[in-house]
Amino acid sequence: MKKFINKPENVENEMLDGIAKMHPEYVRRLDGLDVIVRSEKKKDKVALISGGGSGHEPAHAGYVGYGMLDGAVAGPVFTSPTPDQIYEAVKAVDDGKGTLLVIKNYTGDIMNFDMAAEMASMEGIEVEQVVVNDDVAVKDSLYTTGRRGVAGTVFVHKIAGAAAEEGRSLKEVKEVAEKVIANVRTMGVAISPCTVPAAGKPGFEINDDEMEVGIGIHGEPGTHKEKLTTADEITSHLLECILKDIDFEGSEVAVMINDSGATPLMELYIVGNKVSDILKEKGIKVYKSLVGHYMTSIEMAGFSISLLKLDEELKTLLDAKADTVGFKAL
Amino acid sequence: MKKFINKPENVENEMLDGIAKMHPEYVRRLDGLDVIVRSEKKKDKVALISGGGSGHEPAHAGYVGYGMLDGAVAGPVFTSPTPDQIYEAVKAVDDGKGTLLVIKNYTGDIMNFDMAAEMASMEGIEVEQVVVNDDVAVKDSLYTTGRRGVAGTVFVHKIAGAAAEEGRSLKEVKEVAEKVIANVRTMGVAISPCTVPAAGKPGFEINDDEMEVGIGIHGEPGTHKEKLTTADEITSHLLECILKDIDFEGSEVAVMINDSGATPLMELYIVGNKVSDILKEKGIKVYKSLVGHYMTSIEMAGFSISLLKLDEELKTLLDAKADTVGFKAL
Repeated sequence: MKKFINKPENVENEMLDGIAKMHPEYVRRLDGLDVIVRSEKKKDKVALISGGGSGHEPAHAGYVGYGMLDGAVAGPVFTSPTPDQIYEAVKAVDDGKGTLLVIKNYTGDIMNFDMAAEMASMEGIEVEQVVVNDDVAVKDSLYTTGRRGVAGTVFVHKIAGAAAEEGRSLKEVKEVAEKVIANVRTMGVAISPCTVPAAGKPGFEINDDEMEVGIGIHGEPGTHKEKLTTADEITSHLLECILKDIDFEGSEVAVMINDSGATPLMELYIVGNKVSDILKEKGIKVYKSLVGHYMTSIEMAGFSISLLKLDEELKTLLDAKADTVGFKAL
Repeated sequence: MKKFINKPENVENEMLDGIAKMHPEYVRRLDGLDVIVRSEKKKDKVALISGGGSGHEPAHAGYVGYGMLDGAVAGPVFTSPTPDQIYEAVKAVDDGKGTLLVIKNYTGDIMNFDMAAEMASMEGIEVEQVVVNDDVAVKDSLYTTGRRGVAGTVFVHKIAGAAAEEGRSLKEVKEVAEKVIANVRTMGVAISPCTVPAAGKPGFEINDDEMEVGIGIHGEPGTHKEKLTTADEITSHLLECILKDIDFEGSEVAVMINDSGATPLMELYIVGNKVSDILKEKGIKVYKSLVGHYMTSIEMAGFSISLLKLDEELKTLLDAKADTVGFKAL
């Protein structure tokens, strides 16, 4: 295992301290907890919390700030945060308007966020939840009942975050989050695995001429291995799977090409070149493209493509001002 | 060679098309050229151009837009763009107020940008140049007389770009660019090499327990190999080299922790945690931190630390609004 770390057992703690120390104008860490919140609590709005295992940076702490999240809870690498950590996050960010939990569909996350929601409810805090399940690659997986929640989650943070920032009620913010979830689809591929520091060895093995299709974001293998082919062919295949899942024809979309960690931007734009051509050919209009590191899997070399079907409301909220370490919109 | 590409000889062309197609609200590509310019030409200001070999994305096309560059010229991977391409870029962006070329110190770049400047001068366009040489690792290198220009270049784009945007003269924009160059220092390290697509094999070999210290940004080896040690020790060493080069004591600084390509953000923040501690201990106040992908070397696993000594003028210009694909400031 070749990494820039000190001790494997300290990576999460030192990372969270690093984020808080380097960006005090954006965030602070709650004392003794693995929770990152805005450095100044935003008053009089619905609070948004997300989180999950570490290893997906800039998700989720990188999205804490104006126009997106109020708090992010970090578990150990690829492991759900505990209910009490999530509960503490809710208590810290809720301002009487209620809190929305944005959960990626993984069994551990569902269970722990749900338990935290119950704890908060017993304290009289109004908590709602949404579960993101944008991955079209698998129906059920090793860690999931139903589809996995992957990079499309960042669209939920952005759009629900903007809705909360403009003062909408908890019910309304939840509704718009669910609209995003209903309209976003993602699929990914990888050519190299990642190594969880505590495990010390890669999550799967792969030959020099192979790729993992339908990869998740936790170092787990994809649906199957195939011979590595050209960027154009891979892109066509991923888009085909996405486009047959819901009807995007004639609509406007936001595109995200998300880096799993170690894929050069050069390659993401070669993929983007093909994505643009295919969507144009199919009469799908691209309203906005996001290309880069949004929901990573430590140092995995791979990428995912997400398409979000937009209407006027989603376009306005996607464009709204956001100012976080990992996502800025002017 | 395992990459998401089509043919090695097409990577630059497809990448540039991809950038232009995915971000038409920011940039467009000049017909038949490897030049990216703002989609709407900004009138009545000094123009800024940078560029160099491809493989450093988001540099340089990612920095074309409001508050930063007006044009970026892309050579083949790690190879200087030709004088005629640079000359065409100058002609496209100059608006009668003159053009500043921001060059990283590499022999090929110096020669070709210089020749382009001469060609433009003969057409009556006023062109000035600055050469960035922030790398403290080497005095001379395989490709350089004097120090190499590396990640610190992004600070020059940001700050000189802001100065041009607020209407300063060519002379004034050049002066502030030179102030940044005089006050920025960088040093890097890597644990894995990168592969130039056309070469098909890694730029250097390295053992599983080794790191390359003083790495450049072109896949070339660093100054020497050492046993890979802890993130804290590596960080201390890099900062020590930077801090003994110019006197940062008692000053305010901007910090950049730049990803060479394949280093997870998790590790960059572990480094950032130590950077924060060391600077605090030494009485150096961090005004702003940038952590992420700014000046990459394709898929190299490594990072560099840059420190920029700030005064009030540089702080204001660093904070000024910027809206580009690769760098946003609100």
